[in-house]
Amino acid sequence: MSGDDDDAVRDGEVAVSLPSAADAGVYFIGVIRTPWTERGVCPKRGSLDGPLCRIVVDERWRAALTDLGDHPLVQVLYWMHRARRDLVLQTPHRTGKTTGSFALRSPVRPNPIASSVVALAGIEDGTLLVRGLDCLDGTPLIDLKPHRP
Amino acid sequence: MSGDDDDAVRDGEVAVSLPSAADAGVYFIGVIRTPWTERGVCPKRGSLDGPLCRIVVDERWRAALTDLGDHPLVQVLYWMHRARRDLVLQTPHRTGKTTGSFALRSPVRPNPIASSVVALAGIEDGTLLVRGLDCLDGTPLIDLKPHRP
Repeated sequence: MSGDDDDAVRDGEVAVSLPSAADAGVYFIGVIRTPWTERGVCPKRGSLDGPLCRIVVDERWRAALTDLGDHPLVQVLYWMHRARRDLVLQTPHRTGKTTGSFALRSPVRPNPIASSVVALAGIEDGTLLVRGLDCLDGTPLIDLKPHRP
Repeated sequence: MSGDDDDAVRDGEVAVSLPSAADAGVYFIGVIRTPWTERGVCPKRGSLDGPLCRIVVDERWRAALTDLGDHPLVQVLYWMHRARRDLVLQTPHRTGKTTGSFALRSPVRPNPIASSVVALAGIEDGTLLVRGLDCLDGTPLIDLKPHRP
């Protein structure tokens, strides 16, 4: 999934003013390592047979990985830190169709949280090896959960 | 999903010190209305044939609902505002088995973000009618996305 962090507004797009303060705080609990360092080469959607990526969990939280290895599929939440948050209507370059932000899985949304289901290939020293991600190298991790289809 | 916001630590549970500051801020973008006002009666997991619940989106963000009605299934992210965040190992009452927080879908986790897929029954005046939620009445909404199986 590529981000869209410049201020250009395309035809049909509508921005709103953001709230003056946040309502809650998120901790970045690790970092995602992928082969993609520029948005232009990032896949729009991950594939379970895509390249191996690494999810490096911060030392503080590593004990929370206990038993996660029992689950073949893991839901990963991550913070699309380069995406703008103020567009309610967007016109994706790919489709040219103006659509509500909640009807898209674009990173551009009030809370730029992405959710992907990945195949777990292994866990070593607090690092998960997974397939199925679509994000830029260096994306902050915010949660891991067992996936329940 | 019920919360666990008291300070009691059960056998086997381990708490860590929380980071001194948050890394990013979340906006609450609406509120979830469910039949459950106490944690004891809240289902552990929603069901697509469960009771109708309402998701009321704040006025500021309503234009972002445009075209969401085309999607029969919607992914809902919400903030489990009553859950503690510092446990890395938990012993759920239901199982009695000590497990890593990332291997559970419990609300108790570093970032108390829950994710559910719901069946969309309708959208009226910025309010979604859905089935499949499992949270307390009054839970803050943080995101809506079309579900892609």
